[in-house]
Amino acid sequence: MIGHAPNKLTCQCRAHLPFGCGPNMRFLPKLEQLSYKTREQFMYNGSFHEAVGSVLLTAQCFALMPVRGVTAKHPSSLRFSWRYVRTCCCLLFMASMLINLSLTIYKVLNGSITFNSIRPLIFKSCIFLVCGKALSLARQWPDLMMKWYQIEQDLPQYQTQLEKRRMAQTIRMVMLVGMMLSFAEHLLSIVSAINYAAFCNRTDDPIRNFFELTNDEIFYVLNYSAPLALWGKLQNVYSTFIWNYMDILVMIVSIGLASKFRQLNDNLLKFKGLHMAAAYWSERRIQYRNICTLCSTMDDAISFITIISFSNNLYFICVQLLRSLNTMPSVAHTVYFYFSLFFLIGRTLAVSLYAASVHDESRRPLRYLRCVPKESWCPDTMRFAEEITSDMVALSGMKFFNLTRKLVLSVAGTIVTYELVLIQFHEDQDL
Amino acid sequence: MIGHAPNKLTCQCRAHLPFGCGPNMRFLPKLEQLSYKTREQFMYNGSFHEAVGSVLLTAQCFALMPVRGVTAKHPSSLRFSWRYVRTCCCLLFMASMLINLSLTIYKVLNGSITFNSIRPLIFKSCIFLVCGKALSLARQWPDLMMKWYQIEQDLPQYQTQLEKRRMAQTIRMVMLVGMMLSFAEHLLSIVSAINYAAFCNRTDDPIRNFFELTNDEIFYVLNYSAPLALWGKLQNVYSTFIWNYMDILVMIVSIGLASKFRQLNDNLLKFKGLHMAAAYWSERRIQYRNICTLCSTMDDAISFITIISFSNNLYFICVQLLRSLNTMPSVAHTVYFYFSLFFLIGRTLAVSLYAASVHDESRRPLRYLRCVPKESWCPDTMRFAEEITSDMVALSGMKFFNLTRKLVLSVAGTIVTYELVLIQFHEDQDL
Amino acid sequence: MIGHAPNKLTCQCRAHLPFGCGPNMRFLPKLEQLSYKTREQFMYNGSFHEAVGSVLLTAQCFALMPVRGVTAKHPSSLRFSWRYVRTCCCLLFMASMLINLSLTIYKVLNGSITFNSIRPLIFKSCIFLVCGKALSLARQWPDLMMKWYQIEQDLPQYQTQLEKRRMAQTIRMVMLVGMMLSFAEHLLSIVSAINYAAFCNRTDDPIRNFFELTNDEIFYVLNYSAPLALWGKLQNVYSTFIWNYMDILVMIVSIGLASKFRQLNDNLLKFKGLHMAAAYWSERRIQYRNICTLCSTMDDAISFITIISFSNNLYFICVQLLRSLNTMPSVAHTVYFYFSLFFLIGRTLAVSLYAASVHDESRRPLRYLRCVPKESWCPDTMRFAEEITSDMVALSGMKFFNLTRKLVLSVAGTIVTYELVLIQFHEDQDL
Amino acid sequence: MIGHAPNKLTCQCRAHLPFGCGPNMRFLPKLEQLSYKTREQFMYNGSFHEAVGSVLLTAQCFALMPVRGVTAKHPSSLRFSWRYVRTCCCLLFMASMLINLSLTIYKVLNGSITFNSIRPLIFKSCIFLVCGKALSLARQWPDLMMKWYQIEQDLPQYQTQLEKRRMAQTIRMVMLVGMMLSFAEHLLSIVSAINYAAFCNRTDDPIRNFFELTNDEIFYVLNYSAPLALWGKLQNVYSTFIWNYMDILVMIVSIGLASKFRQLNDNLLKFKGLHMAAAYWSERRIQYRNICTLCSTMDDAISFITIISFSNNLYFICVQLLRSLNTMPSVAHTVYFYFSLFFLIGRTLAVSLYAASVHDESRRPLRYLRCVPKESWCPDTMRFAEEITSDMVALSGMKFFNLTRKLVLSVAGTIVTYELVLIQFHEDQDL
Repeated sequence: MIGHAPNKLTCQCRAHLPFGCGPNMRFLPKLEQLSYKTREQFMYNGSFHEAVGSVLLTAQCFALMPVRGVTAKHPSSLRFSWRYVRTCCCLLFMASMLINLSLTIYKVLNGSITFNSIRPLIFKSCIFLVCGKALSLARQWPDLMMKWYQIEQDLPQYQTQLEKRRMAQTIRMVMLVGMMLSFAEHLLSIVSAINYAAFCNRTDDPIRNFFELTNDEIFYVLNYSAPLALWGKLQNVYSTFIWNYMDILVMIVSIGLASKFRQLNDNLLKFKGLHMAAAYWSERRIQYRNICTLCSTMDDAISFITIISFSNNLYFICVQLLRSLNTMPSVAHTVYFYFSLFFLIGRTLAVSLYAASVHDESRRPLRYLRCVPKESWCPDTMRFAEEITSDMVALSGMKFFNLTRKLVLSVAGTIVTYELVLIQFHEDQDL
Repeated sequence: MIGHAPNKLTCQCRAHLPFGCGPNMRFLPKLEQLSYKTREQFMYNGSFHEAVGSVLLTAQCFALMPVRGVTAKHPSSLRFSWRYVRTCCCLLFMASMLINLSLTIYKVLNGSITFNSIRPLIFKSCIFLVCGKALSLARQWPDLMMKWYQIEQDLPQYQTQLEKRRMAQTIRMVMLVGMMLSFAEHLLSIVSAINYAAFCNRTDDPIRNFFELTNDEIFYVLNYSAPLALWGKLQNVYSTFIWNYMDILVMIVSIGLASKFRQLNDNLLKFKGLHMAAAYWSERRIQYRNICTLCSTMDDAISFITIISFSNNLYFICVQLLRSLNTMPSVAHTVYFYFSLFFLIGRTLAVSLYAASVHDESRRPLRYLRCVPKESWCPDTMRFAEEITSDMVALSGMKFFNLTRKLVLSVAGTIVTYELVLIQFHEDQDL
Repeated sequence: MIGHAPNKLTCQCRAHLPFGCGPNMRFLPKLEQLSYKTREQFMYNGSFHEAVGSVLLTAQCFALMPVRGVTAKHPSSLRFSWRYVRTCCCLLFMASMLINLSLTIYKVLNGSITFNSIRPLIFKSCIFLVCGKALSLARQWPDLMMKWYQIEQDLPQYQTQLEKRRMAQTIRMVMLVGMMLSFAEHLLSIVSAINYAAFCNRTDDPIRNFFELTNDEIFYVLNYSAPLALWGKLQNVYSTFIWNYMDILVMIVSIGLASKFRQLNDNLLKFKGLHMAAAYWSERRIQYRNICTLCSTMDDAISFITIISFSNNLYFICVQLLRSLNTMPSVAHTVYFYFSLFFLIGRTLAVSLYAASVHDESRRPLRYLRCVPKESWCPDTMRFAEEITSDMVALSGMKFFNLTRKLVLSVAGTIVTYELVLIQFHEDQDL
Repeated sequence: MIGHAPNKLTCQCRAHLPFGCGPNMRFLPKLEQLSYKTREQFMYNGSFHEAVGSVLLTAQCFALMPVRGVTAKHPSSLRFSWRYVRTCCCLLFMASMLINLSLTIYKVLNGSITFNSIRPLIFKSCIFLVCGKALSLARQWPDLMMKWYQIEQDLPQYQTQLEKRRMAQTIRMVMLVGMMLSFAEHLLSIVSAINYAAFCNRTDDPIRNFFELTNDEIFYVLNYSAPLALWGKLQNVYSTFIWNYMDILVMIVSIGLASKFRQLNDNLLKFKGLHMAAAYWSERRIQYRNICTLCSTMDDAISFITIISFSNNLYFICVQLLRSLNTMPSVAHTVYFYFSLFFLIGRTLAVSLYAASVHDESRRPLRYLRCVPKESWCPDTMRFAEEITSDMVALSGMKFFNLTRKLVLSVAGTIVTYELVLIQFHEDQDL
C-alpha cells in the first residue's frame, strides 16, 4: 500500500489544493511562494512538516537539527548535507562542547565524587549526547517527513482551516511557553549568581566574579580572560536552550502523532453507530496501521532523546529535592530555586502527559468499534478491534518503558516516597 | 441506539408504572406527588436519581451540589441555574473559603515549611477545589441523570419492590454511617481541643482559648472577636462535612454503577447455561455497552474528586502514622487520635472497595458467557466476551490509576513498608 | 450441565467400581466397609475427599474442621451439626482461646506498643480468626466435597492405581513433613524456654519458671497455679498446631486443585497433535470450565484463611529478620532462632509455590491447543484457547492478590530490600 | 509434526548440502572431515550446534559441559558418558570445589556474619551449583542439540554464507570479549592483591603473603605449603572462569534462540504485505511454534543457571555499591574496584539485553501479520496473530520472572533507589 502511495499522494494533494496546482507545486516551490503568497501562504494543509517549520528554524539558531528547507511548503524540499553552513555550525558547537565537557570532567575528578558534585558532568554529557543524536536525526529528517507526509495525505482530511490549523497552533504554543519559561529561569539564575558573586567576592571585578562562579570548570584550569568568559557564557546559553529543547522536541513529536490519531478518530466519531460498509472499516484499519508504523518509526528516531530527557529530568528533580532541605543563602536564591524546581516538575509532567496522549489517542478507535451495530460487524472490524486491543502503541524510552499515564503515576509515586523518607530522616536527625 | 432512546424510555416507563400514567408523569410531577402520594410515593422505580435524592439534599445543606429537583420522581425535573438561592449560597461559601485559605497560606509561609505544617493548607485547598468541582458537577448533573435514567430504563427490570429498593438502601446506609462517624470524629476533636485549650490557657476566657486554638490561622492575623470565631467555627464544620462528603460521593456513584452492572448480571444469571437466541445476547451486549459508556461518562465527571479524595486520604494517613510515634499529651488526645486514624483508614478502604466493586461487577458477565452451551455460541457472544476481556471498566483517578482491588493492595503495601521503615528508624534512634 | 450432574455421577460411579455396587454404596456405607474391606478398602478411586480424610481427622484432634464422615468412602456421608461432640469441642476451644486472647490484649495495652510487643496479640488473633473460619468452612464442607466429587467423576479417569494414588500421597507427605517440622520447632522452643527460664529464675521452682515465661499473659493477671499452667500449655500446643495447619490447609487444597487440572492435562497430552473430533474439544472445554468453577468456589471458601496465613507469615518473617540483628543469649536460642526462621521461610515458600501450581497447571492446556493441527482447528478449540488466555485461574487472597510465581518474586524482593536497608542501618550506626 | 521430523530432516539436509552427501555424512563424520576439508570445513550450515562448538570446547578446558563431539559437523556425534576423561575431570574439580567450599563455610561461621563477610561463601556456592547444573546440562546436551537441529533444518534457509555465518560470529565475539574482560579483571585483581600483600606483609616471603591473602580460607585452617597455594590459585582461576562462563552461556543460548526467530522473521519480511497462500501462513505458524517449544525446552534446561547468574550479579553489584562508599587503600585498588564494578554492571546488562532480545524477536512476526492484506486474512493468520499476542515467549528465571526489557528497567530502578538511599544516609551521617 505504501509502495504506490506517491500516486495517491498526488491525487490527495490535488483534491485539497484550491487552485488545482498540486503536482507542479512540488517542483516550483520558490515560484509558488512568490505568486500565490497572498492566499496560499496563509492556507494550511495541516501537515506536520508545515507545523514544525518555525520550531526547527529556532532550533537551528542554537546549532540543532541542521536541515535545509524546514519552512518550505512541501517536505520534498528538505535536504541534509555535511557541507551546509548550519551543519558546520552544529559540528563546531559540538567540538566546543567537547572541550567544555573535558574541562568539567577534569574538575570533577579532582574533587570528591558525590551525588551533587557530578551534576554539571551529567548536565553537559546529556547536552553533548543530545546534540550528536539531533545531528543524526537531522540526517533522517527528510525521509521521516516524506513518510509522514504520505501517511498524512492518505488520512481522512479536515474540511475547515480551523481544524487544519489546530495542531500547528498547539505546537507553536508549546514552543513559545517552553522558551519563555526557560528564558525566565535563565534570567533568574543570572540574578541569583550575581547576588551570590557579590556576596562572596573573590576579586574586585564584579563581572569577573560572576563569570568565575558560573564557569568555574574553565577557570579551574585556565586563567581568567574576557574571551574565555564570553565563550563560557555562550556555551551556557546554548546548553540551557538545548536542555529545554530536547523536552520540547519530544512534546512536539507527541503532539504530531496524537493529532494524526485524532484526525482518524474524528472521522470515526462522525460515523459512530452507523451502518458502514466493510470497505470503510478496512480503509480505516489500514490508515490506523500506517499511523502506528509512523509512530514506531518516529519512536526509533527519537527514543534516545526521550530516554535522555526523562532520566535527566528525574535526576535533576531528585537533586533539587535533596537541596530543598538546605537553607537558602538569599531571597534571590529561594525564588530561583523554587521557580526552577516547579519549572522542572512542570516540564517533566508536560513531556509525560503529551507523550502519553499518543497512547490514549491510539486506544480511542476501540470506543467507536464497540458501537458498531451487529449488522456491520465483519472480519475487518474484528481484526481492527483485536489489533488495537493487543498492540501497545506509544512512544518509549528505548523500549525500556512506554510513555503512558500509568508511568507518570509510578514515577510520581517513587519520587514522593523518596522525598518522604528524606524528610523523615531530617526530622529524626534534628531531634 | 441512544439516539432514539426517549421513545423506548416512554415504553419502558409505561410498562413498570402500575397506573398507566407514565407519559404524563413527566410533565405533571407536582400534581402526581399530591394525588398519588399514598401509594406512588412509596413505590420505588429503582432509579439512581431516586436513590440519591436525599443524599444530595443533605449535601445542599452544606453548600454542595446546588441543583434543583433532586427529590423529584423524574430526573427531567432537575434544573441548574446561577440565579437559584442554593447556587448563591454555594458561591458565598466558596468566597468565604477563599478568604480562609488566604489566611492559612499567609500563616504557613510565615512559619517553617515542613511535612506537618502544610497540613491545614492541603486540607483547605482540597476542600476549595472539591467545592468548585462540585459546582461544575451540579451544572452537568441534570444531563448526567437523564442519561443514567435512559440507560437504566432500558435494562432488564427487577420484579419485586425489595430488589428495586436494594441500591437506594445501600446508598442511604453508607451516607448515614459516614455522617455518624464523621460527626463522632468532629465531636471528639472538639473535646480534645477543649482539653488542650484548658491545659495551655492563653487567656482567661475558655471559649476564646478554644477558638484561638482551632482557628489559629484567623487570629494569627486579626484580633479575636466573637463573630470571627463563629465564622471560623462554621467554616470548620462545613469543611469537615465536605471532607467526608467527597469520599461519600465517590462511594455513592460507585454503588450506583455497580448496582446497574449487577442488574444486568442478575438477568444473565437467570438464564445461565440455557440455550438463548442470538438476539438475547446481542441485546445484553448493547445494554452492557451502555453501562460502560455511563461508567466512563461518570468517571470523567467525578474523577477529579476521586483523585483529590484519594491523595488527600493517603496524605492524611501518612501524617497520622508519622504522628503516631509521638507521645500524646492526654487521654482525650489518644482516643481522638486513634479514632480519627482508624476512621481515616476505614473510610479510605471503604471508598477503594466500593469503587473496586464497579470493576468486579463489570467482569462478572464473563462468568456466564463461559457457560454458554456450544449450540448457542455465536458471533454476538464471542464479541461480548472479547469486549469484556479486553476493556478496562473502572472508576479512575484522572486515568492515572484504575480503582481495583489490586490498587488497594499496592497502596496498603506501600504504607506498611513506609511505616516499617519509620518504626525501625525510631527503634534505632532510641538505642 | 451441572444441573443434571447427579445422574451422570451415578453412571460414572458404576463404571469405576469393580463390583457394580455403585448406587447402593452411598446408602449403605457401613455395611460396605465391613463386607468388602479386604480389597475395596485398598482401592483408591482417586477422589480428593478420600485423599484428605486422614488430614481432616488429624485436624479434628486439634479442634478444627468438626465435620463427620471424613474417612468415609463417599462424600455423601459427610455431615455437620452443631450438636456433634467434635463441634462442641471446637466451640469450647474457641471460648478458651477468647479468654486467652483477652488476657493478652490486657497485657499488651498495659505495656508500650511496639512492632515486636504486639507479636503475641497478632499470633492469637490470627489463630482465633482461623478457628472461626474453619468452623464455617466445616459447615460448607459436605457441599463443597459433593461438588468436587461430581466434577471429579466427570473428568477423564486414570487407568492405574499408581496414578490414582499420586494426589493422596503428595497430600499425606505434605501433612507429615509439615507436622514433623512443626513438632521439632515446638520442641526447640521448649528447650530454649527452659534454658532461658533456668538462667533468669524468678522462683525456686523450675517448672513454675518455665510456665511463667511461656504463658506470661496469664500470670500477668492471675496467680500461678498448676491447672492454669496446664491450660496455658495446652493452649500453646493447640495454637502452634493451628498456626501450622492453616498453611497446610491452603497447600492441600492447592494440591487437590492442581492435580485435577493435571488429570485433564494428562489426557490432553495423550492426544497432543492428533486429529480429534470437535466433540472431544468441546467436552474437554466443559471439564476445564468445571474445574475453574470449582477453583473459584474453593477460593471463596478458603481465601480468608489464605490471606491470614500469608500476612501472618510475612509479619513473622519481618519480625524474625529484625530480631536477627540482636545478639542471642545462648546457643539453644541461636539454634531455635535459625531453625524457626528457616522453617518459616520454607513454609511460606511451600505455600506460595503449591498455590502457584494451580495457576501454572491451569495454563498448561494452552500448550496442547497450540499444537492442534490446522484441520482440527474449530470454534471449540478457539473458544477454549481464548478462555484460557483471558481468564485468571488461581487461588487468591480475598481477590486482592493472586497466588502466582510472580507474587513469590515480588514478596521476596520486598523482604530482601527491607532487610538490606536494615543491615545498612546497623552497619552505619555501628560506625 | 515433530513426530516424523527425522524424515523431513534428511530431505532438508540433502537440499542444502552442495555435494548431495547429506545422508551419509551423519554416519561417516570422520571420513568427511578428511576428504572434504578444503571446502566443506569452511562452509557453514548455520546450525547452532556448529556455532557453539568452540565455545563449549573452551568451557571443557575449565571442567564444564563434559560432552564429546562438540566440534563435529553434525549433532548426532554428540555423546555423554560418565566414563569419559572430561567427565571425570569435571567431577574431580567439583570434589575439589566442595573441599574449598567447606573450608570457606568453616571460616565464615567462625567470624561474624555480615552482608559483606558471606561474599566468598555465596560466590563459591554459586560456582559449585553451576558446575553441578552444567554437568546435568551436558547429559541433556546431545538430545537438546538434536532437537534444535531438527527445528533449524525445517526453518526457511538463508541463501548466502554471510547470512549463515552471522549467528556464529556474534556468539564468538561475545565469548571473546567476555573472556578478554574477565582475564583483564583477574589480572587487575592479582595486581591489587600483590599491592595489598606487600603493604601489610605478615611474613618475609612476598609470594606466601600473596597466597595467604587470596586464599585465606585455606590457610585459616591449614598451614602454608606451596602445593596448597597452587591448588588454591588454580581453584581461583577456574572459579573466575566459571563465574563468567555462566553469564556467557545464558547470552549464547539467547543469541541462538533470537537468531532462529530472526531467521523466520527475515522470511516473513521478504513477503510482507504480499498476497500469500494460506499454506504459507500455516507453515510459518508451525515453524514459529517449533521455535517457541525449543525456547521453552532450553529455558527449562538453563533457567537454573539463569537465576543463579542473575541473583549472583545483583548481589555483587549491591556489595560493590556498598563498598564504593569506603575509601580505597591504593590506586591499584581504585582502578581494580571501578573496573570490576563497571565490568559487572556491563556484564549484567549484556546478559539481560541479549536474553530480552529473544522476547523482542518473538513478537516481531506480529508486525508482518498486521500488514497482511484483507484478501489473505484467513483463520491461519488469525490463529498465528492470536498466539503471538497471548503467549509469553522469553527466557525466564525458573518462571519467577521473564527476561524482558521491562525487567532491566525495574532492576535498574531498584538499584538506583537503593544507592540513592545509601548516599543520602552517608551524607546525613557526615553532617
